[in-house]
Amino acid sequence: MTDLDALPLRPELRGRTPYGAPQLKVTHRLNTNENPYPLPAELLADLGTALAEASRELNRYPDRDAVGLRADLATYLTRTSGERIEAGQVWAANGSNEVLQQLLQTFGGSGRTALGFTPSYSMHPIISAGTGTAWVDGHRRADFTIDAAAAVAQVREVRPDVVFVTSPNNPTGTAVALETIAELYDATDGVLIVDEAYAEFAREGTPSALTLLPGRPRLVVSRTMSKAFGMAGLRLGYLAADAAVVDALQLVRLPYHLSSLTQAAARTALAHTPALLATVEAVKVERDRIVAALPAMGLTSVPSDANFVLFGRFADAAAAWQALLDRDVLVRDVGLPGWLRVTAGTPVETDAFLTALGEVAPEFRASLGD
Amino acid sequence: MTDLDALPLRPELRGRTPYGAPQLKVTHRLNTNENPYPLPAELLADLGTALAEASRELNRYPDRDAVGLRADLATYLTRTSGERIEAGQVWAANGSNEVLQQLLQTFGGSGRTALGFTPSYSMHPIISAGTGTAWVDGHRRADFTIDAAAAVAQVREVRPDVVFVTSPNNPTGTAVALETIAELYDATDGVLIVDEAYAEFAREGTPSALTLLPGRPRLVVSRTMSKAFGMAGLRLGYLAADAAVVDALQLVRLPYHLSSLTQAAARTALAHTPALLATVEAVKVERDRIVAALPAMGLTSVPSDANFVLFGRFADAAAAWQALLDRDVLVRDVGLPGWLRVTAGTPVETDAFLTALGEVAPEFRASLGD
Repeated sequence: MTDLDALPLRPELRGRTPYGAPQLKVTHRLNTNENPYPLPAELLADLGTALAEASRELNRYPDRDAVGLRADLATYLTRTSGERIEAGQVWAANGSNEVLQQLLQTFGGSGRTALGFTPSYSMHPIISAGTGTAWVDGHRRADFTIDAAAAVAQVREVRPDVVFVTSPNNPTGTAVALETIAELYDATDGVLIVDEAYAEFAREGTPSALTLLPGRPRLVVSRTMSKAFGMAGLRLGYLAADAAVVDALQLVRLPYHLSSLTQAAARTALAHTPALLATVEAVKVERDRIVAALPAMGLTSVPSDANFVLFGRFADAAAAWQALLDRDVLVRDVGLPGWLRVTAGTPVETDAFLTALGEVAPEFRASLGD
Repeated sequence: MTDLDALPLRPELRGRTPYGAPQLKVTHRLNTNENPYPLPAELLADLGTALAEASRELNRYPDRDAVGLRADLATYLTRTSGERIEAGQVWAANGSNEVLQQLLQTFGGSGRTALGFTPSYSMHPIISAGTGTAWVDGHRRADFTIDAAAAVAQVREVRPDVVFVTSPNNPTGTAVALETIAELYDATDGVLIVDEAYAEFAREGTPSALTLLPGRPRLVVSRTMSKAFGMAGLRLGYLAADAAVVDALQLVRLPYHLSSLTQAAARTALAHTPALLATVEAVKVERDRIVAALPAMGLTSVPSDANFVLFGRFADAAAAWQALLDRDVLVRDVGLPGWLRVTAGTPVETDAFLTALGEVAPEFRASLGD
């Protein structure tokens, strides 16, 4: 094998490492915010039928515009947000990563700038780089919340072409107030992307940014079926926006990007929405159980509207991560000094995590005042 | 809906239209080089089993590195090319379009240039544009073949970062001599991509560029399961190259880009390779039948190593296209004055096409000397 440096790689890629959490064989995989509940039996049966049917036409290209799937996604968004979303306002791709990449190809790219409030979803700067878009770190308070006035001032100063707001934020977990999102929209001439990958897990009274769409043609709300729908293996991300945004994405999307199997499986899953979202409530219970158990261990957490909890603080988060892994519990070291992230899953997983953490906390937690 | 021009689109996208052949309801769809043969019954049965099994784990992310699938693809390439290809030399994505996009993100991009010998696969310049890569049209002779000496001279002058050679070429159909590919490799410091989407349809004695891989770390051969394998709906493209190229692509690939269903279906199909490739021979017979029937109609074709035929000449190709469509036969107007492209499929499709063409040819064919 040739040395990587001998290839005519783009200069900014040199020395970089690929994105990705370790895929380790561990009993309790609480590091990628998957939904641990297997799909309901009735859905599995319907998937069998739908995929067999789609297989019979696999020699033909898929519906390039995914018309049926987009209509089903629009119906889902309309029902859950109370905001009327039309099929023409929805676009889907292989994971929300591909949706975001298409948005950056259209509205970002070389000579343009994206701004996101870090720490946040680490793929935002990576996909920006992959599309040649410059990246600017937006500021947060020490408690990881966004100071609306400071954020607006920074956006006015930087004048980014694309602004990312992750709500609920990953890896910290907290949703962003709609007022802040509306103020950021007014502060930018660019496209504002609200990444709502974890929206379904938000606490009571946390409306979706979908309700802000009317009259805001530069606002985009992205979603995924990987988390609440428990279909990370399907790779189905989507967005809602003004229909003109969807039209614009047609100029960069790869034709026939979404396979017939993906379209069939996603539509089948959407027909089982109530059964799938039942697990969301169960996961929220476990999340709140984790949050409630931390203080007795001398630990704390960031308020979570997601299916995970950012917990700490540790004197050495990497050492605490390893100590948990030694106890067969895999959490995520997101690179925030003092903090780790754990996915909320089943009661059994919560038990295992809290037991392991109880053993680890006394040695690794930060002293008061750290 | 907002007007598209009111959005902060990248300037080079303004006024462009999305790529894509019309998806029309027509009896004989001979416009996108699909394989008309449905998948064999035994494969459909195995797909049912494999997809049901994969569905049970859909709540988990797919294997990010698609290790099993890449090993199976390597085995297929080794068996059919005679060249030993290791799993680490293979990479797969959602259609060869995504493979090519990842290559351009890694080796092309803003400030860099790609060159391809037009007319060729029209997505090459489009994906280049989508990644900010400048595009230069390479020259061909009037008979659509590549003049090796002229091509080498042009590559030396332009100094592109990425060179595309489509072999067999689409839409013209003819394979490129390995000597030409080897000379082009020596003429460039960039990455040479040989797009072999139609390789399995080549006439006897047309070796794959896979045999050129040893000692050429900047050579990439891309393939697809859409054509010979008859799985256009699956969206599975792949490449073989030096393992360092595969490593480099990890820096831009979206994590978990290939769904569990895609990986399972592709591996199942590869286990049925002999049955699937049996249709290739049947399609080649129909291709050669089309070629043989043209002269009696006062028409001609470009020599084809693919599952399609570029045929002509017409005084007005667009009018001839419409006249064929009026007879329920959809072919492709690829924008080459005087020429149309037809997909070779089943004997019934050939009959329908030749009957319609027989009616259309007298009115629309070019006069001698046109």
